[in-house]
Amino acid sequence: MRRRDFFKKTALGAIGASVLSPFSSFAGRFTDETLVNAGRAKNIIFMVSDGMSIGTLNMADMMRQRKEGRKSNWLSLYSHNKVRRALMDTASANSLITDSAAASSSWGGGVRVPNGSLNVNADGSFNKPILQKFKTAGKSVGCVTSVTITHATPAGFCVNSAKRSAEPAIALQYMDLGFDVMMGGGQEFFGANKRSDKQDLFTKYQQAGFTVLKNRDDMNKLTFQENKPIMGVFHDGGLPYALDRENDAVLTAKTPSLAEMTKTAIQQLKKNKNGFVLQVEGGKVDWAAHANDPGGLIYDQLAFDDAVGEAIAFAEADKETLVIITTDHGNANPGLFSGADANNNFDRIQTFKHTNDWILNGVDQSYSAARLIERIEFAQGYAIATDEAKALLSHYEQLDGEGLYNPRRLPFQQLAQYQRKHLSIGWASMDHSADYVELAMYGPGSEDLKPFIKNIELHNFMLHTTGVQA
Amino acid sequence: MRRRDFFKKTALGAIGASVLSPFSSFAGRFTDETLVNAGRAKNIIFMVSDGMSIGTLNMADMMRQRKEGRKSNWLSLYSHNKVRRALMDTASANSLITDSAAASSSWGGGVRVPNGSLNVNADGSFNKPILQKFKTAGKSVGCVTSVTITHATPAGFCVNSAKRSAEPAIALQYMDLGFDVMMGGGQEFFGANKRSDKQDLFTKYQQAGFTVLKNRDDMNKLTFQENKPIMGVFHDGGLPYALDRENDAVLTAKTPSLAEMTKTAIQQLKKNKNGFVLQVEGGKVDWAAHANDPGGLIYDQLAFDDAVGEAIAFAEADKETLVIITTDHGNANPGLFSGADANNNFDRIQTFKHTNDWILNGVDQSYSAARLIERIEFAQGYAIATDEAKALLSHYEQLDGEGLYNPRRLPFQQLAQYQRKHLSIGWASMDHSADYVELAMYGPGSEDLKPFIKNIELHNFMLHTTGVQA
Repeated sequence: MRRRDFFKKTALGAIGASVLSPFSSFAGRFTDETLVNAGRAKNIIFMVSDGMSIGTLNMADMMRQRKEGRKSNWLSLYSHNKVRRALMDTASANSLITDSAAASSSWGGGVRVPNGSLNVNADGSFNKPILQKFKTAGKSVGCVTSVTITHATPAGFCVNSAKRSAEPAIALQYMDLGFDVMMGGGQEFFGANKRSDKQDLFTKYQQAGFTVLKNRDDMNKLTFQENKPIMGVFHDGGLPYALDRENDAVLTAKTPSLAEMTKTAIQQLKKNKNGFVLQVEGGKVDWAAHANDPGGLIYDQLAFDDAVGEAIAFAEADKETLVIITTDHGNANPGLFSGADANNNFDRIQTFKHTNDWILNGVDQSYSAARLIERIEFAQGYAIATDEAKALLSHYEQLDGEGLYNPRRLPFQQLAQYQRKHLSIGWASMDHSADYVELAMYGPGSEDLKPFIKNIELHNFMLHTTGVQA
Repeated sequence: MRRRDFFKKTALGAIGASVLSPFSSFAGRFTDETLVNAGRAKNIIFMVSDGMSIGTLNMADMMRQRKEGRKSNWLSLYSHNKVRRALMDTASANSLITDSAAASSSWGGGVRVPNGSLNVNADGSFNKPILQKFKTAGKSVGCVTSVTITHATPAGFCVNSAKRSAEPAIALQYMDLGFDVMMGGGQEFFGANKRSDKQDLFTKYQQAGFTVLKNRDDMNKLTFQENKPIMGVFHDGGLPYALDRENDAVLTAKTPSLAEMTKTAIQQLKKNKNGFVLQVEGGKVDWAAHANDPGGLIYDQLAFDDAVGEAIAFAEADKETLVIITTDHGNANPGLFSGADANNNFDRIQTFKHTNDWILNGVDQSYSAARLIERIEFAQGYAIATDEAKALLSHYEQLDGEGLYNPRRLPFQQLAQYQRKHLSIGWASMDHSADYVELAMYGPGSEDLKPFIKNIELHNFMLHTTGVQA
């Protein structure tokens, strides 16, 4: 859709020229007469629980109610009638089922690109990433994520790259962009030891004028006095699963939670009188869905929900911030399924200490069935059968290095099958779905949301609602 | 929630006494000062796609777009910004995962009851079914469904029964109620030959003053001149799957589609100047989900969508009708999942001739693997492997009579697994999920819908919006 057409079709466009932008610093920017109504929101916080099927949102909300006696932050916005909602069509240029790169590019570039690509079309042409547009318009911009900061979802708001897998190169691209706050995992793409070019990007970022953060203490020491761009990279790969982090004093001390990063990013970004745009990604929700890992899934969704709480707390006080809360696609379509003990089975998850990821990555060929049973009981409070333990251990006899999310081909699917009778959770796949997904908006600009949108529509929506030129 | 409290919490309640009911025939009924704002809608059409996970709605919509070049009727309401939407919590009194009896009772009686019960609480007390309330208030009422008319979803709006399985008794209860239009399947509960009491209910209904319809021709001959109640029972059990019906001239002639029943019911019910309330159930969507049957699921969801089209066409012209479109719970959480050929695989379903139900119920012990492969190719256009055909046939060596939806324990799950590589559709279960579900409202009264509701809230919502006393 052309920009001019987009505005004509909105309620704002219909009002005509009678309302001026409340943000004088931006109002002067426009010469196009259709834009005089733009600029309802000064700031945007764009929140993505990556790979969140509706059952993921549902189970996290039920867990929060049963364990803590309150609804999730996300859905309590609904109960209090504070949001507009839409179903979102998430398809990419070449498939009904998007990957995270094409999904983030649809928002970030406003164009559907082939899966695997970051704002690069099939013909090789580029679409300008939205945070570059916002930066040019004078806003502060940033991303925080629980996976690598160079991963597809943050990268889709920031860069052009024909391949999402080019994370070492994306780590370099970020330096040139000089965005205000970037925080997540991915030291493997910044440290000299794992980069094939042996460059130490941490040193280079410092030389380029960045404040570099390598652990939670570094982050907590920020005084928000400086306007230097911040690059925070807190873990080798993705950050730990929220459940594993909570139950590991070393990880809790070393890595921040998604909510802590979100709060910190907002504190830094809000200093700009022209406003800011921040993307917040709960990226390990997707990884947990790929692994059919209930503890990973539900606790990381709750960690995302804590970040939603931070964003909403800021936006409620600020009154000039649009908060968009959504996901990029479904993944695995998990659910709590009918059965005699479903409620009790579901409640077991309340006392989980560790994820399936922790269980399976801590096992090696020296394990006996009895020891594996004990490890699972310690981590999750129930005992699998000896035959099941033996079958799981058989996978450790031959390990290889392939596979995007399961590098050692660990028996995640099999463990999930064995867990089913203990937890009543089922999974339809270990990959993304075409499901239309949940989207909610809070704050100024949300009034314009229609009940059904395509992912690409959010690009112009965000520009429009902040009054920024495409 | 007490009735008075309910009104106090609505936007309407907040307006105070300044607005009178537009329906004078009902306005005179109220003595409670909190009710003066009630009665926005004269009619309600309550539409339930039973057991519809979000992936079911998604796949039917994608199919309609790719096959017919238009969105589903349901979701085109969203694209045109004509509805209010909510997520609905579907739990029952004793489980996070409801069955259809407790779900329909939550709407029908306004109280969560244990699974399996129709408006009967755990202590044995009854909740008055909503169609009885509407009938007493002077409205015409009815139900149409693609399963047996005595099944849980229609029954939950009509009767009290401690057991949903008491369908022969429910068939008798309906006679005493004298509701205006009841149509669906279930001749097995009305004919003398299959009833243990050997009563011929068809004759009894006629003697009691009903117009009895036994096939589509009977229905098409209705002139809508009479005000006699109508009992239409068109098939032995549930009506055929939409896909099988469309490809079988005998079934097409004998049984009406859900859309045809819906249109017919509206024509009869709309004659009442006091208005009407109609429940429309796409009941076989749930059966198809229980059977992991993609052709059953998607084509019956489209048949439901055709019925949505009829309801909306009436409501758009009428302007006094609230249309509620939802499901009672998720089931199986199916989805179209990522893979190289996902689009092409999904498009295979466009040329399906028959469901998995048709395939497996037409096989017997005389079948060879080659013949089964041929049968599947004829029905669905792809060939399974010989080993797979042999494995499926092994189930026919021993058949028994147990199981609610799979009376002969046919290998539905196994067939769905083999189909996966041909169709890219996955399933997380063969049973209901706890997922929060999609709900949309069109028409007067829809303005009051909040973004998140519990199923029980719809009971008072419907009474309130029509201005009928509880």
